Parts: sequence; structure tokens; C-alpha cells
Amino acid sequence: MSSNSKSKAQEHFKRNLSSRQQRFRAADLVAGVLNGDRNALSTALTLLESSLPEHRTIANEILTGILPHTGKSLRIGITGVPGVGKSTFIEAFAKEVFTHSNHKIAVLSVDPSSPLSKGSILGDKTRMNELSVHPRAFVRPSPSATQLGGVARNTRESILLCEAAGFDLILVETVGVGQSEVAVHGMTDFFLLLMLAGAGDQLQGIKRGIMELTDAMVITKADSGNEQAATRAKGEYASALHLFPERTGGWVPKVFVTSALQANGLSDVWEELKSFQHWAISSNYLHDLRAKQNIHGFHEYIGLLLNEQVQRNQRYQEVLKHYLSQLEENQLTPFAAAELFLSEMFKSN
Amino acid sequence: MSSNSKSKAQEHFKRNLSSRQQRFRAADLVAGVLNGDRNALSTALTLLESSLPEHRTIANEILTGILPHTGKSLRIGITGVPGVGKSTFIEAFAKEVFTHSNHKIAVLSVDPSSPLSKGSILGDKTRMNELSVHPRAFVRPSPSATQLGGVARNTRESILLCEAAGFDLILVETVGVGQSEVAVHGMTDFFLLLMLAGAGDQLQGIKRGIMELTDAMVITKADSGNEQAATRAKGEYASALHLFPERTGGWVPKVFVTSALQANGLSDVWEELKSFQHWAISSNYLHDLRAKQNIHGFHEYIGLLLNEQVQRNQRYQEVLKHYLSQLEENQLTPFAAAELFLSEMFKSN
Repeated sequence: MSSNSKSKAQEHFKRNLSSRQQRFRAADLVAGVLNGDRNALSTALTLLESSLPEHRTIANEILTGILPHTGKSLRIGITGVPGVGKSTFIEAFAKEVFTHSNHKIAVLSVDPSSPLSKGSILGDKTRMNELSVHPRAFVRPSPSATQLGGVARNTRESILLCEAAGFDLILVETVGVGQSEVAVHGMTDFFLLLMLAGAGDQLQGIKRGIMELTDAMVITKADSGNEQAATRAKGEYASALHLFPERTGGWVPKVFVTSALQANGLSDVWEELKSFQHWAISSNYLHDLRAKQNIHGFHEYIGLLLNEQVQRNQRYQEVLKHYLSQLEENQLTPFAAAELFLSEMFKSN
Repeated sequence: MSSNSKSKAQEHFKRNLSSRQQRFRAADLVAGVLNGDRNALSTALTLLESSLPEHRTIANEILTGILPHTGKSLRIGITGVPGVGKSTFIEAFAKEVFTHSNHKIAVLSVDPSSPLSKGSILGDKTRMNELSVHPRAFVRPSPSATQLGGVARNTRESILLCEAAGFDLILVETVGVGQSEVAVHGMTDFFLLLMLAGAGDQLQGIKRGIMELTDAMVITKADSGNEQAATRAKGEYASALHLFPERTGGWVPKVFVTSALQANGLSDVWEELKSFQHWAISSNYLHDLRAKQNIHGFHEYIGLLLNEQVQRNQRYQEVLKHYLSQLEENQLTPFAAAELFLSEMFKSN
């Protein structure tokens, strides 16, 4: 039996689970996840990422079951241009944390690019080899969803599953394609921007607006003769950050210089994260931030779902195309086009 | 007859215009606007800002009529913290432009704050006295809409009306409340950020992300002993801007030092705007930008209209409140809440 027909048979089997079986399976997986069982966690994540409605139904039941046991981690978003050394930093940083604490670390990725185009997933898998076999780590490569909205939703809910499984430090890495940094910023507590020393040209890859989302900047690869440039860059970024307006809640972002190779500066980053967590909880910042993120996510998903509805319906697609071309030819104002489009959509319901 | 009952009578009269009369009136106003008649322009703007559906109907007909005659201006967004001297700058800048060209300037404002709260509108009216009586200028104070979405929509369409009336330099000023800068950035070609010298504390009023939207920075009030601080600030901001990633299209923002009092530096700003316009047209940047803005506006308005629909309907309001409170109590994920809410909304249509 080829692996292809085997997986088809599996799908057929799964499709035909009765709703009683589904409920049983969901309860089973909830118990497994809450017990910290990695297989249960992996299965739950796979169901979450699946595009089959039957899988989503089970995933939704699992989510409802684990929700009361979520929220206790520190959620850290990590971004930086390709080549900045994200995976290397994450691996070295996790090792540092494991040495000084009992934390359990989960690493998730948001990568809206196709797995065929860049090979970044395979790259990550290779590079995080050491971390992924650590008993207190869980590394989940990016799902291959094509839509950022879908990826963002999956990742948001993956965070919850990892929390329920006992991971109390969640690192969400983004490769920085499209709007992925903004999406990751919207589902994490602390946003870490990794930077290379020798600014200027290197910076071109960081998109506008990202620096201002940053809770801390980390200059990587301060080794092998690169130390002076890193220290200089630290000064430059620190004064640039100084020019930015104050963060909501009053948190002041700092710049750190690190070397994953020599394990330098990583403990400073870890201390900073701990003091952030302490401050964020005691000042109620974390509570307010997450409530805001939930409500923002709710509104975002409404847009996403409406969008899906339009994309699945051929007539909607044609109507949309019509109004967009009228817009392009300056025959309608954006508002008039929106009004006409909506009246068409609601008419047919 | 009291003014109150008089205006009621007027409203009654307007409400009862037949659709033939409405069409006649719209055609009349289109002709007036295209002739550059200020009264026709003012009336059209008032109809646009009105919340009466009958007025909106006429306004929509006017917009359709003038649309082919729009798009030929340079649209400039202007922002800065209160006290930076926006009105003074605009007045001095307009005088500079009038001296060296035949341009006609319209000044619009986006102010989502209530007119009762701050008095900024009255302030603007007083301060721009000189400009507002200039034969080649048209100053329109901010409408008193309460919703930013509504204000943004009005302003976007007001720009079109002013263009049809022959104004080829449109300044859209924002007081910087809420998301108004982002809204103004989304409807203008060039975004100008006014700054005070002596940065640091002053900067606290500029919201995060605004600096990165900037096409040029203008340091104001470089006079009365403030000259050195202004020059120093110019250097600081120039290096800070240098750290930012490149703008879409490759435009490089510069920093200017001005004094409205002594009419210094204003011609440099004007030269910069002219060279931007030349570049933006010849590189097709302007065409692409406006197409993008129109499509973005279209999607934004769809959200706005759906939102209005929810707000007008008491049952929707209750359903929404229910799900938001479940979200807050962590009983639902944002996605599940969105799914349930939408199924309720579409059920009742």
C-alpha cells in the first residue's frame, strides 16, 4: 500500500467517525494534553491545522476543554531578517533557560510562505535538532497553510494547547513574510526583534513599523571579530529607540548584545523577560493586553470568515471583481462600492 | 419662529424633496462645483457630512457626477502634537505657495474628537482667519461626526469634491486623536510630520508607528532663540530616519527646519513637495498608491457598514455583548466566538 493510498484510507476512516466517537476522542485528547502527553499534543495540533471540517469539530471541542487551563505562560514573539540567526538564538537561549530554571519551552513558527518556495521549514527542523529532543522542549514546525489569517488562527490556538500541556514559555518565531510580524505581535506578550550588527543595508529587510512594536532588541552574532560593531549598533539602536514614543503601559525597550556561539548575553535577555513578566502581571498590563488581543482577534476572524464566504461563492467573486474594477477605473468611490457590494451579499442570504 | 423650529421646518422641506427634485439639485451642484463655485462646494460638503439618508442620496449622486474630474491634486496629510503649530505652519506655507505659483489650496481637517471636548475647531477657525478669506484658498473645519470611520469617509470624499472644484493642493490636517493619523495617511499622497525642537518629552505625544509613515519631517518654531535646538533636532531625526527601512517605492524622507514667524525654510518644503509629485507621477508610484488606497478603503468601509448594521440592531448588540463577555471570561476562543456570532447574524437575514 503506497503512503498516499494509506493516508487516503486514514482520512476516510476519520471522516466517518460518528459524533459520539468524535466526542470520545476529544475528551481523550483533552486528558492527554492536560497530562503533558506529547503524542496527544501533536495529534491535537494536527487536528487544529487540518482543513477537514470533521477535524475542526474535534479541535474545537478540545479547545473548549483545555481553555480553563490556559494563559499561564509567557508568550514571546521573535522576529528578524533571514540570516539573523533566529533558530540558533532560540536554541542557545532555551539551553540558558533550562540551566537556570525548571521552565518548559514550546517553539512555534508562523510562516505564511509556501513550504515549497523557501525551504525555511526544513531549515528550522535541521537547525533546532538539539532543542527538539530535549525533554522540556517542544518544537513544532510551521503548518503549511497558505493564508496568513489561517496560520495566525492556528498559531493562536496552538499556543493555548501548548499552555494546557504545561509549557510555560512559548516562543513564536516568524520568518517576517507579509504581515506575519504584526500577526505574531497580536498574539504574544513580548516582542523580541533580532538584529544584525552593521546596520544600514541589513536593516532594509526589517519592515516599517516593526521597530516600534519591539519590547526588546537583541543584536546577534557578537563574536568572531564582530564584537565592536555589535556594541556600536547597540548604542545606535538605543538612541533610536529613545526617540520613539512611550509604549502602552510604560514599558521601556532595551537593546541587548548576544552571541549564541559563546553563550554571551543570553542570561541578560532572560533576566529582562523575567522582569517584564513580573511587571506585566503586577501592573495588570498582561491581563489588559490579552483581553485586547482576544477582542481584536474576534473582529479579525469575523473579517476572515466573511472573506472566506466570498471566496467560496463564485457569484460573490464575480460581484467583487466587478466593483473592484469599477473602483480601479474611478467610476465609484470606495464607499459606494462597499455599499453596493454589501447589499448584493445580504440580498442573497 | 425660534431657530430650532425653523431648522425643523427646513429639514421637513428637505426630506420631502421628490427624487426628481433631488436629481435636479444634484446636477445643479455638480455644475456649480465643477465651475469652482464656493457656495456649491460648501453645500455639497454639507450634504456629504449630513446623517440624513436623503442628503446622502444627493451627495452620492454628486460624487458620481464629479468623479471623472478628480485626482489631479497633490494630497498632503499633516500631523503633529498639539502646540506644534499646525495652523500657523499651514497658513505660512500656503502664503509661500501663493507667492510662487498659481496653485489653489484647500485645507480639510480630520478631528474625531467631539467639538465640545477640546475646542480645536474654534481654535482652527480663529487661527486660519487670513487663509480662509484668500481667493485661492478654501478652509473647511472638521465635521462634528463622532465616529472616526465616518469622519475618514467624509474627508476622503471631501478631497474629491475639492479637487473637482479646481483645488490642486489639498492639505488634510489631523489633530492626532485615536487612529486619525493612520486614516489620513490612507487617503493622502504625502505625509508630513511636524515636530518641535527639544525632542524627548515633546515626542511622547506622537504615537508609535507615526514616524515610520512620514514622507518628510518639519521642525517648526525655529526662531526666537530656538534655532540651535532645531538644527540639533534635525540631525537627530535625520539619523533616526536613516535607521528606518526603505519606503515603498524608494522615497527617502528628509528633515526640514522652518519658522512660520520668519517665513524661513518654507520654500524648501515646497520644493520637496514638487519634486515628490514629479517623482511620484513619473514613477507610477502615485497611481499605484491611490489604487491601493481605494481598495483598502473599500474593505474598510465594508467593515464599517457591517459594524453600523450591528449597532443599529438591538438583538445583534445583545448577541455581540454575550460573546464578548464569554471571550473576556476565557470561555471561548476568539475564533469560536466569531464563528458563533456570524452564524447568528446570517441566520436572521
